[in-house]
Amino acid sequence: MASSIPKDAMEFPESDREFLEPHLPPKDGSTPGHPDSPFVTLTFATSLDSSLALSPGAPTAISGPQSKAMTHYLRSRHDGILIGVGTAVADDPSLNCRLVGVGGYGGEGLAGQPRPVVIDPTGRWNFTEDSKLFKLCREGRGRAPWIVTAVKDPPAENVALLQEYGGRYVKMDVTTSSDVGQNRLDWGELMATLKKNGLNSVMVEGGGHIINSLLEPEYLSIISMVIITIAPTWLGQGGVVVSPARRFDDGGLAIPAARLSGARWYPLGEDVILCGRL
Amino acid sequence: MASSIPKDAMEFPESDREFLEPHLPPKDGSTPGHPDSPFVTLTFATSLDSSLALSPGAPTAISGPQSKAMTHYLRSRHDGILIGVGTAVADDPSLNCRLVGVGGYGGEGLAGQPRPVVIDPTGRWNFTEDSKLFKLCREGRGRAPWIVTAVKDPPAENVALLQEYGGRYVKMDVTTSSDVGQNRLDWGELMATLKKNGLNSVMVEGGGHIINSLLEPEYLSIISMVIITIAPTWLGQGGVVVSPARRFDDGGLAIPAARLSGARWYPLGEDVILCGRL
Repeated sequence: MASSIPKDAMEFPESDREFLEPHLPPKDGSTPGHPDSPFVTLTFATSLDSSLALSPGAPTAISGPQSKAMTHYLRSRHDGILIGVGTAVADDPSLNCRLVGVGGYGGEGLAGQPRPVVIDPTGRWNFTEDSKLFKLCREGRGRAPWIVTAVKDPPAENVALLQEYGGRYVKMDVTTSSDVGQNRLDWGELMATLKKNGLNSVMVEGGGHIINSLLEPEYLSIISMVIITIAPTWLGQGGVVVSPARRFDDGGLAIPAARLSGARWYPLGEDVILCGRL
Repeated sequence: MASSIPKDAMEFPESDREFLEPHLPPKDGSTPGHPDSPFVTLTFATSLDSSLALSPGAPTAISGPQSKAMTHYLRSRHDGILIGVGTAVADDPSLNCRLVGVGGYGGEGLAGQPRPVVIDPTGRWNFTEDSKLFKLCREGRGRAPWIVTAVKDPPAENVALLQEYGGRYVKMDVTTSSDVGQNRLDWGELMATLKKNGLNSVMVEGGGHIINSLLEPEYLSIISMVIITIAPTWLGQGGVVVSPARRFDDGGLAIPAARLSGARWYPLGEDVILCGRL
């Protein structure tokens, strides 16, 4: 039976959906040209000064209501939503789709609800059944997360909690970059793993570390589409900024880090939506 | 007699001018609501990560040909173009209008050529007759600059050079901010001075210091209109960034620094143009 429609459900009208269609994953789940990898959409909302938030752990209302509804429409069109552990820890995010008509919001079962994927190489996220994600699972309004980790033996209670709700750990090696001493994921292998596990399309939503990492030259080919919302506001210096690492040419001169090709801009409310390929 | 049209002249078609009209200074030079101040347009082009350039003194091609032509159309619609001394020193800018039909580009005399205004409180700009601005004056393709300074007795040869080309110094006091020890202009007084000197509209083009300064709360009321070009590219970390100083509420919490009202977005080529009021 279809569920009743909660008050926080959103509508994204057909007339606004049209411009997005050429930029979305194929509806049949196919991934032409890259059979071993999902269709990967990198999507986020920034201020004019390229900030995602005033500070880490301070979720900041940047985009307007239409853009927010668009994000939920995008979620309904992807098999998975991927975020980094920093965002999971800081925001206690919902990561479900609140679009009218999907499962839990008037639709059947969990139809249209994407799979949350949290990248947590070292097991930093101390989730419990009180985490928003699990609360939404209990209400039939979202799916349990997959947690991608390099931890060999995650805590038994975490494994049990995930299992109870239908989520799980996805274990994979983490490449440690020797020059900066940071854990760095091999994005290619990660996406191949998600595809093997049945996700034909993945929407990467943040946070800043994940986005800046994916905008580095070695990973650009992993991204199928970029969809950015820009709001006409400046957050000011000191925010969580999207800006990839500086890039240099063979002669050591700084060059632009990345550019979108086939860029298309669509005004939506007070914001603009930018779609393009890397 | 109308001049011949140089090869670097640009066209900005009527069909593209329409969207800009509501955002431009009144054609009759009136300044309704603020009789003692010019119509001030803040305008610049940034990357998606809000950079004006890869580094100071490295003018970076960011915007596409249509957006560049738009900038020259904007120049033709303002009495003055204002830049900071940092940009004058770093870029040796032309600051003229290369639109087909203005003086020097097919038009009569210097019709449509704006007055360059360089803000140089301490006399840092060592201009000579080889500076691009003066070269363009000799060719009948631009006006000589006004240099706004707090220096009481500028070098006699500079005074003479400016006079020869029809430019001059505009002397005014500079307010020194005690907390950071930097020279800070009183923007209100500056704009009033420019209005008294006959400029009914002024276009502020940069650089980063000037723009970030004008986006601070105390100066927001000076700006009549903001027109920003955004290109679908990331310059990467370490660029010359537009991002105003962080702002806090009464309780000490960070809040967004500034927001445009009545924001309108216009795709133009691969870029987008954003117009709005502060």
